[in-house]
Parts: sequence; C-alpha cells; structure tokens
Amino acid sequence: MKIGFQGERGAYSEIAAQRIFGEAIRPVPLHSFEEVFEKVDSGTLPCGIIPLENSLTGSILQNYDLLLRYKLSIVSEISQRISHNLIVHPGCRFADLKEVYSHPQALMQCEKYLSRCKTMQKVPAYDTAGAVKWIKENNLRHAAAIARTLAAEIYEMEVLQKGIESDPENYTRFVVLRRHPRTNKNAKKTSIVFSLRSVPGALFRSLSVFALRDIDLLKIESRPLHGKPWEYFFYVDFAGNAKDPNCRNALNHLGEISTFLRILGSY
Amino acid sequence: MKIGFQGERGAYSEIAAQRIFGEAIRPVPLHSFEEVFEKVDSGTLPCGIIPLENSLTGSILQNYDLLLRYKLSIVSEISQRISHNLIVHPGCRFADLKEVYSHPQALMQCEKYLSRCKTMQKVPAYDTAGAVKWIKENNLRHAAAIARTLAAEIYEMEVLQKGIESDPENYTRFVVLRRHPRTNKNAKKTSIVFSLRSVPGALFRSLSVFALRDIDLLKIESRPLHGKPWEYFFYVDFAGNAKDPNCRNALNHLGEISTFLRILGSY
Repeated sequence: MKIGFQGERGAYSEIAAQRIFGEAIRPVPLHSFEEVFEKVDSGTLPCGIIPLENSLTGSILQNYDLLLRYKLSIVSEISQRISHNLIVHPGCRFADLKEVYSHPQALMQCEKYLSRCKTMQKVPAYDTAGAVKWIKENNLRHAAAIARTLAAEIYEMEVLQKGIESDPENYTRFVVLRRHPRTNKNAKKTSIVFSLRSVPGALFRSLSVFALRDIDLLKIESRPLHGKPWEYFFYVDFAGNAKDPNCRNALNHLGEISTFLRILGSY
Repeated sequence: MKIGFQGERGAYSEIAAQRIFGEAIRPVPLHSFEEVFEKVDSGTLPCGIIPLENSLTGSILQNYDLLLRYKLSIVSEISQRISHNLIVHPGCRFADLKEVYSHPQALMQCEKYLSRCKTMQKVPAYDTAGAVKWIKENNLRHAAAIARTLAAEIYEMEVLQKGIESDPENYTRFVVLRRHPRTNKNAKKTSIVFSLRSVPGALFRSLSVFALRDIDLLKIESRPLHGKPWEYFFYVDFAGNAKDPNCRNALNHLGEISTFLRILGSY
C-alpha cells in the first residue's frame, strides 16, 4: 500500500508509517504537508501520514489548519521516539565540520549539543533526511546533517555521534489520514474541531459536555477563526469512541451549543 | 524611554510601541525575541515589546515559551492592524521584479496577491522591515520587499502597491514587558499560566474557577510540559484585574487545584 509523507526517504514519518503498517508499505515522499492532504483528498494516494505534535516543541499548527481545510479522517496514530544523530560523509572527522544542516525543529532540539560546537554554523533545511541527502549529493565534506540513523543507511553516510538531542523525552505523535472514516470498534480516542458563539462561559460549557459524562479530555488546541479576530476554533482530543453511546451523547450535546462541529476521527 | 523590539527600524513592533508610548520613545532594534526578554530581565532596557498573537496565523509559540522561562510582567497590550505593501527601489517597475523578500508570516499573509505574480520567487527574511533594508543595502533592483509603509520611508524606498494582504482582518496583538508588575487600577485583562495534575476532569475543574464566578475567558493556549510527554502548560487570558476580589478568589481557587500557577500580568 502506498502512503504519502512529507520529506525525503528516511524521514521520521516514514518509520512511523512502517511501525503502523509493516515493512510492506510503499512510502511516497512529498514536498509539503499540504501535498499529503491533496493527494489523499483527490484519491491519488489511499492514505498519508503527518506529524501533529511534538512533546518538546508542541503542535504543528499548519497541520491543524489543514485538518480543517481538507475533510479527511484520522484513522490511527502512533507516538514515535525522536532520537537525533550527527551524520557525515564516511571518514569525515569532527574537527573538519563547519556547518550543520537540519530541519529547524531538529536544530532546536539539539541546542545543548550544538552550543558546545560553536564553530559549526546551523543551516535550516526543509527536512531532516533531506539534509543528509543534500550534504551527500553536494559532496559537502565540511558539513554534517542531523537526522535519524535510517537516513544515514539510506544515503550511505556515517553516524558520527548518536543521540545528540537535549532532552530524551522527545516524541512526535503521527496520525494516518484517509479520505473516509474507518469503523474501528477498538478506537480509544476521538479528535474533534468546533467553534462557539462569542459569549461568556462558552468554552466552559462546551467542555462540560465531556466532564458531566466523565469523559477525559486529552488535549485542547486553539486556532484563529479567519475574519473574526480573537475568536477561535478549538481542537479537542478526548478518551473514547465517537460511536460509544456516552460519547455520542456528549457530541450531540456539543452540537447544541457550538456554531460548527466536525469529528476528525476515532482511532 | 528605551524600548527593545525584535527586527529592524520600521518593524510593526515599533509602530505598536509608538502608539502606546508616543513618538518620544527610543526604539532599540534587537536580533531575536529572546534578546528582548534578556535585555529587560537583566535591567539593560526598562521595557520591551513583543507580538503574542496574529488574528490569521495564531499564537507566536516561541514567545509563550519565553514568557514562562523569563519572569517578566505584561504591563500593557495593543492590537495593531497589519497592512502589507510591496516596496521597491525608487523608479523600479513591476515588470522588473524577480524576487520578493519578507518574513515568512508576511509572505503567507499575501499569498493571494503573490500567487498572481508567478514569476516572482519568494525569499524568507527574518523581519519585514529588515527585508526592505536588505534589498536597499544590497542594491537589489530586481527585488521587492513586503513591509509597512513606514519601512519604505525610513529606508527611502518606494511603495509600488499598497495593502496586498489576502485578508484585511489582519491584526497582531503586541504586549509590553517589564521586569516588575505595575499596579494599574484600570487593568481589564489578566494573563496567567498554570499546569495541572494529569487526572480526568482537571482542565474542566480549572476553568470552573472562572465560570463559577462569571469571569469571561478570552483565550486559552496550551504548550508542552518538557519531560512529561503529552502534558501541558495552559496559558489563559481572562477579563478582569487580578487585584479585584472576584478574580483574586478565582486565582486562589485555581492555586488549590493547580501544580503550578503564575500571573503574567494585569493590564
């Protein structure tokens, strides 16, 4: 099965997809997150995988906005440990390095290590594995890239230093998107997005539909509502399957008091 | 009075500061938001101004994290209309343009206009006014920059096209930071940050301290709690002065049920 992801072969998204679907998948590297949404929406690809949140740097806001714009369904999720490595051309030594390429988030996550390498200039790249590909293809022998070990293997490069991230509690939550929801009786979590009338107590009342039914909230994210400055869409993850009677009642209740409500998926 | 801001002279932060303090201020351009926090924290500058949120692109997450890391106080805020202009060297014509420089957020906010100028390549800069300075100092006569009109005046450049933003409802909320809180009896709004025990219903209970006292919530933002994946700090803005008895009671109540609570300021 083909699955679209943003980045180059060896990206963290690819390994997350393999952990969900097994080695038999055919990962399709795409240039942007929006392209992943487009290809799934148009039916060109049966599914795509995107990161939604990192445990250190927080939500990937662009993907929250795309979830609203495209009407795809979240069908599964996986939490992937992120471990960064300093990758170089085989035989390159640390003393030779003048530049380090990676995604800005990865550079940020290795801040402590990089602050000890003051002579190395940080260069942002659009993707971690793409940074390895870049220094390989351009034969940059004074440059390192930060990416996972798989990227070193794919591009036949060498890991000079393993696990250089500042904080080992570094996880990214990936979700799989499909065009249509899948009935999954074992789903334990539901994601929704809604908006409210701008009246006092509105957010509190909206959360009460869950609290009054002992449904646990796992996450809340707010994004601006275009055209109405300082009003928001709320993205909520809660524990439970949208098809369970208790959750169905909570969602019906939320439907009464919200101006917009969409179920993004139970998984 | 000196006031620190991120960017070059002519930045939106500068005009926001002038609207709060008048023309007599001395704006001090700094390279990063963190530098603004540092200079105010160390007492090098009496105050600084930072953007917290844009009505189209949402919260500036980095500044939320810095609010937690540095113990500064928010003492005032202002909502600044953002209007973007295409700025060029005097005499340059539209047909000559091959590149357009600006902050990635500004490029994003002019998407519709730029999509009609397919021959122009978008080049990200670290600041809108800095982009004008850059094309001026490097004499880039085939390039335009996107910034406010003030930036064109400062660098003696020409506005080729006014108001090129895709959505006119484009505002940025700026806040002024000081080292110590200021007693302001007219304060109508309070910002806080808190964390909760990871138990079902915790967020709902924390918001109930406001709802039960008819205190209106204006904004909620969540940021990751480092070292505890998928737990969060919550940033809440509510209507009222932290010194009002009603708000003081709500904050005391929140103190009982939160594991951490800080008042960022009433303003």
